[in-house]
Amino acid sequence: MDYNRIFKAAIDRLHDEGRYRVFIDILRTRGQFPNAHCFGGNGPKPITVWCSNDYLGMGQHPAVIAAMEEALHTVGAGSGGTRNIGGNTHYHVELEAELADLHGKQAALLFTSGYVSNEAALSTLGKLLPGCVIFSDELNHASMIAGIKNSGCEKRVFRHNDLEHLEELLAAEDPATPKLIAFESVYSMDGDIAPIAEICDLADRYHALTYLDEVHAVGMYGSRGGGISERDEVAQRLTIIEGTLGKAFGVMGGYIAADQNIVDCIRSYAPGFIFTTSLSPVLAAGALASIRHLKVSDEERRGQQASAAALKAKLADAGLPVMPSVTHIVPLLVGCPVKAKRISDILLAEYGFYVQPINYPTVPRGTERLRFTPGPTHSEAMLDELTDALTEIWGRLELELRQAA
Amino acid sequence: MDYNRIFKAAIDRLHDEGRYRVFIDILRTRGQFPNAHCFGGNGPKPITVWCSNDYLGMGQHPAVIAAMEEALHTVGAGSGGTRNIGGNTHYHVELEAELADLHGKQAALLFTSGYVSNEAALSTLGKLLPGCVIFSDELNHASMIAGIKNSGCEKRVFRHNDLEHLEELLAAEDPATPKLIAFESVYSMDGDIAPIAEICDLADRYHALTYLDEVHAVGMYGSRGGGISERDEVAQRLTIIEGTLGKAFGVMGGYIAADQNIVDCIRSYAPGFIFTTSLSPVLAAGALASIRHLKVSDEERRGQQASAAALKAKLADAGLPVMPSVTHIVPLLVGCPVKAKRISDILLAEYGFYVQPINYPTVPRGTERLRFTPGPTHSEAMLDELTDALTEIWGRLELELRQAA
Ligand SMILES: Cc1ncc(COP(=O)(O)O)c(C=O)c1O
Ligand SMILES: Cc1ncc(COP(=O)(O)O)c(C=O)c1O
Repeated sequence: MDYNRIFKAAIDRLHDEGRYRVFIDILRTRGQFPNAHCFGGNGPKPITVWCSNDYLGMGQHPAVIAAMEEALHTVGAGSGGTRNIGGNTHYHVELEAELADLHGKQAALLFTSGYVSNEAALSTLGKLLPGCVIFSDELNHASMIAGIKNSGCEKRVFRHNDLEHLEELLAAEDPATPKLIAFESVYSMDGDIAPIAEICDLADRYHALTYLDEVHAVGMYGSRGGGISERDEVAQRLTIIEGTLGKAFGVMGGYIAADQNIVDCIRSYAPGFIFTTSLSPVLAAGALASIRHLKVSDEERRGQQASAAALKAKLADAGLPVMPSVTHIVPLLVGCPVKAKRISDILLAEYGFYVQPINYPTVPRGTERLRFTPGPTHSEAMLDELTDALTEIWGRLELELRQAA
Repeated sequence: MDYNRIFKAAIDRLHDEGRYRVFIDILRTRGQFPNAHCFGGNGPKPITVWCSNDYLGMGQHPAVIAAMEEALHTVGAGSGGTRNIGGNTHYHVELEAELADLHGKQAALLFTSGYVSNEAALSTLGKLLPGCVIFSDELNHASMIAGIKNSGCEKRVFRHNDLEHLEELLAAEDPATPKLIAFESVYSMDGDIAPIAEICDLADRYHALTYLDEVHAVGMYGSRGGGISERDEVAQRLTIIEGTLGKAFGVMGGYIAADQNIVDCIRSYAPGFIFTTSLSPVLAAGALASIRHLKVSDEERRGQQASAAALKAKLADAGLPVMPSVTHIVPLLVGCPVKAKRISDILLAEYGFYVQPINYPTVPRGTERLRFTPGPTHSEAMLDELTDALTEIWGRLELELRQAA
């Protein structure tokens, strides 16, 4: 067995397709986000970050930093155990209560990441419901796909946000079969939003449970940051809402919120919850402060929406191929992995602007793009500089421009 | 579909078997570990923790706290992105280099937890090696079992630490079949150690790769804390070494160390690595400080081994059924989930000693136990008080004592 040849070949395939990833080595500068430093050939160089999922800059918020510092000094670094064996701290208990309240649910459950929450919750739900069929939006995140696969359930994939197709698939199953519809609110690579209320209508009609990933919406939408389900006033209709503490909340970790029995089932049966060191209490304390802040403050949400709207308008005015997005996400279509990487390289090397090219498997081949997430601290001048830089590069690489909007 | 009835029944099963888990709500007191507070009926009450996996108290170490505080003030709370999209910081890069060095490997890769590292690495390895058969010790951790299952590979389970059985299974396969042997160094519920060198001999003979989980040994064994594989001088012979940052290192996170190609493959193909917010830089900074400290300091390791040896001797002298363990883990056999919980409840309520009962599925039914992990900060007086308390409870509940050793 020449194992090494096999591993080498797997890496070569990525190089051949132009999608071998080199991680950019950066350090953000607290208090000065989106400014950061990039490490590379000639030592650290100042850059502006345009692709952070710390959408609101909460990872830099004084209340979050202060809460983490206090926890660090009060209890120390790690929890030292699984939730069941020594790793259940008062921060975890309080944070779960806060999250349940945020989504108007009876209970919530913490995981070490949003990825793990999706994998653990979906796989466990599927195993607890004998014969369950899971209906999954075709653009669902890798973590949901993993959870559904590991549930061992039959899966039916419906076309993205396509209610007719979903109904067709639901209607084709035996009414007595347990059913679960799994979908996202904000799809993070396109910036579109699912018709949550209509999906809940279908769920009612066909007696299905619903599982909504609000990872890119929590903290960002709804008057308390409860996500699109809060904004659309449909949180009560969803069986399970899943979210992350690592994007708009600026920290790290994941969770689900649902009724007591369901949360208790996942708490009791999910290996990905049971057999792992619990979230560091320092992170739990930071997330708690972040959620509490965003429950009462709208300033960050408004600033971020304004930035995103302004950037979309500027790009469209310049004739750049900004993709339709009804959210805070600003995707710019390139359609080729090599060109997307080239643009990103020029932006970083010549302009000090950091935006990661998004390639397959994160998006379908042929839809490679740059994905900008301007936040409340990106200034008008920065938006203009970025637009000018892109216009220059588009010209230099002889890429197609649209009719200016 | 009465979904609620199904979920309710799943919970009732746990109550019926006496293994419904209620998490003890605690707060450790930094600088005073193993002292902590427990929240419950009548407000916080001081307790002594006897079951932490922060084996060396590094979660409270001034160098770790200082490094985390500095990172918090320099870069903020979370990384704000996946490793590929904005979440690769200089702390991650340095920490991976440090881990590679710790195990004498070319490279290392960080994950959000040890659980995720096992799941992601094993499932991805299996997928990259067509037709691979995985040989798994019967007592392997849930996270390895999950990874092996999700790899889709054929699995052969060998009896715990049984070289003959392993060889029998290896010999039964086609020599041309890719093979991987997955096992742990320290088995954390029994405290025994795998014959790593002999397993490597078998791997050589049958051309198998080796995957060693050193989660309960890193930081603890070897002159630099490189684990049992360092102590036994066999690190070079192992294909992949996996570890956690959440136990002896006192923080949170997981990793693998291996040669460059293998690490690059898992970095490039594992969904559990790719599609998730990277470890908070604050945690990475803390882990870095902890590893660096334990590379040069032996004091914590010696203190912990002395505590464990002393407790084993005291329990044996008192005739209590301490299980044979050649490591820092001190398991006390009870053999019944209800009695194990009862003893634990009395210890907490009457003595302020916190030790979690270990029940199925963490250990096989009929081997339910209490598992003590005395550390360098548990004093001789504490060990005596614990032994006296257990002796009293053993008498009160009319449990069997052994002939005093
Ligand atoms: C839709 C979606 N769900 C879940 C996740 C995983 O969340 P986390 O980063 O907290 O693991 C992500 C991205 O990382 C995501 O985009
Ligand atoms: C043997 C073993 N491997 C892996 C893990 C998972 O590590 P982590 O707690 O970092 O997820 C654990 C325990 O949690 C374990 O006991």
